[in-house]
Amino acid sequence: MTEKLAIIGGGGLTGRELLKLLSHHDGFEIIHITSNQVNGKTLREVFPSEAYLPNLTFAKHDSEIPKDCTVVLATPNEASLDMAPKLLKKGHRVIDLSGTFRLHDKAKFEAVYKFQHTAFDLMEQVVFGIPELFRLKIKGAKFVSNPGCFSTSAILPVALLGDLRKKIAGPVIIDSKSGVSGAGGRTEEITFAFTHVYENFRAYKILSHQHEPEISEYMATGSEPLELIFTPHLLPVYRGILSTIYINFKEDVSESEILTQYQKSMAGETFLRLLPTPEAVELRNVQNTNFLDIGFRMRGNTLVIVSALDNLGKGAAGQALQNLNLMHGYDEGKGLVGR
Amino acid sequence: MTEKLAIIGGGGLTGRELLKLLSHHDGFEIIHITSNQVNGKTLREVFPSEAYLPNLTFAKHDSEIPKDCTVVLATPNEASLDMAPKLLKKGHRVIDLSGTFRLHDKAKFEAVYKFQHTAFDLMEQVVFGIPELFRLKIKGAKFVSNPGCFSTSAILPVALLGDLRKKIAGPVIIDSKSGVSGAGGRTEEITFAFTHVYENFRAYKILSHQHEPEISEYMATGSEPLELIFTPHLLPVYRGILSTIYINFKEDVSESEILTQYQKSMAGETFLRLLPTPEAVELRNVQNTNFLDIGFRMRGNTLVIVSALDNLGKGAAGQALQNLNLMHGYDEGKGLVGR
Amino acid sequence: MTEKLAIIGGGGLTGRELLKLLSHHDGFEIIHITSNQVNGKTLREVFPSEAYLPNLTFAKHDSEIPKDCTVVLATPNEASLDMAPKLLKKGHRVIDLSGTFRLHDKAKFEAVYKFQHTAFDLMEQVVFGIPELFRLKIKGAKFVSNPGCFSTSAILPVALLGDLRKKIAGPVIIDSKSGVSGAGGRTEEITFAFTHVYENFRAYKILSHQHEPEISEYMATGSEPLELIFTPHLLPVYRGILSTIYINFKEDVSESEILTQYQKSMAGETFLRLLPTPEAVELRNVQNTNFLDIGFRMRGNTLVIVSALDNLGKGAAGQALQNLNLMHGYDEGKGLVGR
Amino acid sequence: MTEKLAIIGGGGLTGRELLKLLSHHDGFEIIHITSNQVNGKTLREVFPSEAYLPNLTFAKHDSEIPKDCTVVLATPNEASLDMAPKLLKKGHRVIDLSGTFRLHDKAKFEAVYKFQHTAFDLMEQVVFGIPELFRLKIKGAKFVSNPGCFSTSAILPVALLGDLRKKIAGPVIIDSKSGVSGAGGRTEEITFAFTHVYENFRAYKILSHQHEPEISEYMATGSEPLELIFTPHLLPVYRGILSTIYINFKEDVSESEILTQYQKSMAGETFLRLLPTPEAVELRNVQNTNFLDIGFRMRGNTLVIVSALDNLGKGAAGQALQNLNLMHGYDEGKGLVGR
Repeated sequence: MTEKLAIIGGGGLTGRELLKLLSHHDGFEIIHITSNQVNGKTLREVFPSEAYLPNLTFAKHDSEIPKDCTVVLATPNEASLDMAPKLLKKGHRVIDLSGTFRLHDKAKFEAVYKFQHTAFDLMEQVVFGIPELFRLKIKGAKFVSNPGCFSTSAILPVALLGDLRKKIAGPVIIDSKSGVSGAGGRTEEITFAFTHVYENFRAYKILSHQHEPEISEYMATGSEPLELIFTPHLLPVYRGILSTIYINFKEDVSESEILTQYQKSMAGETFLRLLPTPEAVELRNVQNTNFLDIGFRMRGNTLVIVSALDNLGKGAAGQALQNLNLMHGYDEGKGLVGR
Repeated sequence: MTEKLAIIGGGGLTGRELLKLLSHHDGFEIIHITSNQVNGKTLREVFPSEAYLPNLTFAKHDSEIPKDCTVVLATPNEASLDMAPKLLKKGHRVIDLSGTFRLHDKAKFEAVYKFQHTAFDLMEQVVFGIPELFRLKIKGAKFVSNPGCFSTSAILPVALLGDLRKKIAGPVIIDSKSGVSGAGGRTEEITFAFTHVYENFRAYKILSHQHEPEISEYMATGSEPLELIFTPHLLPVYRGILSTIYINFKEDVSESEILTQYQKSMAGETFLRLLPTPEAVELRNVQNTNFLDIGFRMRGNTLVIVSALDNLGKGAAGQALQNLNLMHGYDEGKGLVGR
Repeated sequence: MTEKLAIIGGGGLTGRELLKLLSHHDGFEIIHITSNQVNGKTLREVFPSEAYLPNLTFAKHDSEIPKDCTVVLATPNEASLDMAPKLLKKGHRVIDLSGTFRLHDKAKFEAVYKFQHTAFDLMEQVVFGIPELFRLKIKGAKFVSNPGCFSTSAILPVALLGDLRKKIAGPVIIDSKSGVSGAGGRTEEITFAFTHVYENFRAYKILSHQHEPEISEYMATGSEPLELIFTPHLLPVYRGILSTIYINFKEDVSESEILTQYQKSMAGETFLRLLPTPEAVELRNVQNTNFLDIGFRMRGNTLVIVSALDNLGKGAAGQALQNLNLMHGYDEGKGLVGR
Repeated sequence: MTEKLAIIGGGGLTGRELLKLLSHHDGFEIIHITSNQVNGKTLREVFPSEAYLPNLTFAKHDSEIPKDCTVVLATPNEASLDMAPKLLKKGHRVIDLSGTFRLHDKAKFEAVYKFQHTAFDLMEQVVFGIPELFRLKIKGAKFVSNPGCFSTSAILPVALLGDLRKKIAGPVIIDSKSGVSGAGGRTEEITFAFTHVYENFRAYKILSHQHEPEISEYMATGSEPLELIFTPHLLPVYRGILSTIYINFKEDVSESEILTQYQKSMAGETFLRLLPTPEAVELRNVQNTNFLDIGFRMRGNTLVIVSALDNLGKGAAGQALQNLNLMHGYDEGKGLVGR
């Protein structure tokens, strides 16, 4: 059987990545796709580098969505806020890639996103889409919120520490470096001009990035709140996020305790890989994959973790497909692991 | 049914690309893979960025090749010269990626490759692996020689001109620009150090590149010999070859004659795309695909053609898989076009 | 003594390059600089990476230009057309970096630039600013037109062939590859976004680039008209232009004739370098310099020349300074050759 | 008057950078330069991109050094250990760019550098070459040890905090990102191949980099010892180092206290620039300069500092020239600030 999919806002990098992944997945059929920038064009015109594409034309965002399909919202925050409640009411399953349905603290949401959240009751229903943390809830879920691209690279290495998190002293420091496709490279801002990015490097939105609150909320899942310092940087590469994470413990924690904990947390996980050293974690090992690689080292009570993922893969479309598989009862790795 | 494959010299970029493509192809099973550099290691260790890999360990080049399998020779020229005759004698089908079995002029071969060709009788049997030119011969063939990465980007735009080639005056000028993975980027030479390639550009092996003779031979397929000037350049990109080709005609040839001829030559071809302008031909449209894109413009009697392909795709592993499909009776695009 | 300079349109890449060069030249004092984009800002604010900068604030383009200064017009074509005649009338020396005063064929000018040339009488007075061709006229000149960035890399290798040009058959083919700063990288177009340039390569404006007519005119200086085919490409590098030039001769011309001619034409030239092979010509050898490097090879009657320069150096600001030196009686290399 | 210089090991990137800087400095005359890799070649052959070069040929390392010259040792650690004592005994002034004479803790030195320090008595005499910390001692000094490229970017932002350092709790965390020319890009290791660096990013030598001990020693200059966590990363850029530094304070420290302290520490410093925000610190503002840019932000008791310099400028040759100027009584910025 084939499930029907509609992709709202499918003309961007995440849309293209999802189409690429679905070209090797026979369980979903895309029946509707929209874009306000390229509507009226065929998928073939917009994505000439894709070998396989459904024979579809981009519709406008506000065109009617066919019944009986699952809807992927790759839309701006306000559009998701507007559409998600209506779609759910009509009985669609929804996976939202915007930041609108991630934070359970309404005041914090409105401080970060600068608009009023008019459907906050849905926060009781929505599941945060990191399968390694919320697999049981995602299975068969009606409404999933897919995490921000930085978030998965930051949340999992901390959350997987389990009870060791209770020994953390002071803020968790997350120093993240993102390729341009993650940082917003499709927008036509001068900041992303070749002459501004190439042979350059800089930090941005220090302590004010919109992903910080969701990292803060979910890295503490099942434990007590943790302080967080988050510094994103812009790499002159196309895709990939590498995060270097610094954690101080109140009391003695040994390297082997960390190892044991990580091995336990990652046991049986297809897409999490614990590498023997943090230096073995490289962007090129995770680009175009759904893997999250992790390595670590300790000195005294300080733990240094390096994690890496593909911001368009495990950081966006790959994880979305992982969630879509779970929502529809497919093997979690279908379309993501070959064959 | 599944055909068995052995890949000799599978530890390099072409080997990895073939493994990636085969992860979406259920008609071949790799049962043997060798490498002299990484033998003893598993595929998973050598190619950490691949989602799906056969559960195999790299053997040495000289380890015994299992019976009843098709052999992919991704080996240096001398190794192919040594192995191909023996394998054919034992009944294996063979596809050779080296330059050893491409030239039908023995003197020219030995001048270019600087060693004696001791199996030149096989030149009567081998088929040159560009399906768009030699499809009927490749179907079911026992022995195919896969073209060099520059060659396909240069041969097809000229050969597809058909009878118009008879009107060509003076040399065909082929100005090619290749990414590092095509130009030999795996070798540990200082020439391919980041500090020598990045923010740099240069020509190399002008009028002496080893692919020039095979371009010369095959671009004239079915027509009279043509003179050739071939200038390869090294681009600071990872993958892709773009060739700008200049042809002068003896007599008036109109843009619409070219268009008609190309439309005819490319009719029904899945992997050849004629674009409306030569400016629309870009590396990023062909990277990670098996497409060859072509565009052209004329002024007076001069024709300017721009072509592009992925040196690891249509320029190497993609075309090899296209050939393997034909050799074994599969759909030509299986594993190359999604779904 | 110090000459006074005004730079109109000094807020871009060429302006910055000229300021950088003048930081090592004590013969010019910049007393006025304008920009419509960053007026009101100090040079220090706009160019934080420059060690030495005059203590000036950017004025608006239309602010009054002080008397007794030489004016550098780094302005769009129409602005140059408007300002140059007025400035010359007031007695200013002028060097114009736009395309407005380069072509002596009015019809061709208006076809290329799409506006009427209302000061065409100045074409009798203006000197084209390639010192290696027009040194005597530039010395003490009142009005110099600085060439386009592609032009010098294409004109000189042909013009320096001297009388051998009379033996050329068919069009001179110039296949040029430019870094982003030359191709227009400051403009905020999506075409120059990191995600469109990086790991990409393409041709643009084939047979329609605005520099083609001036290359055509000046490469034939002192000889008969030559046909031209010009194909610019966009490299994913910041600075530098490499041109590969193909010339067919009607009759036998030997490699040693070319060598003798080039040695003669380049004798005593500080900024022209004839390299032993065309492969030795690399962008990295000319970046941040005022050099034009040339190498060549022949096969039969076909000559392949490779030339390289820095589009912001010998292709723009460096050559402008070379011209300014000649206009004011300084050593031609002052500020360009160190010490 | 002109001081005479000999450069031992001048064939690398630092040598070239020093030659470039000295081309605009009339106070030094290079009379001797050596290289074991390119000896016998002229400077012009080895550095074709330099406009001005002394008319010299590279000698071998062990060739006799002329009397009465200051010696720049751009040599491996062991060579510096061997040569520095002998040269000082003969009366030469010496500036050493190796790591041999930086650490005052002999046990730590031998643990890091894995060889015995046989001239440790010189540690009482040598001055560490950061003028902003040790200017008075460097003036007229006989023996200066130039810091490692990472070190200046890490030491100064901490050391300039002055007495505020006494309030620091836990380790200072320094997350540094370096371009390839700083990380060792000249060595012919596969790690620095284009295919390994481009479109990639990774950490290396976490908690084991040889610059960590000198950062540790000198960032505490004039204060009590501080703990340190140092993580270097390899950027796919040519030049530049950006360090993101995280400091927790034991007690309340306000943003304005930091500002006041930095303004005081940097007052009158030509090459230190305090920027209004940490996001304004970018590699491109410091490349090809001798500047160190610093910006910061606080949340609670945590301070985030971003610093940037050019690893070949303020991180190596630029700072060496600053030191050479001080050693010989020139203006500190001569050759570094234009005009």
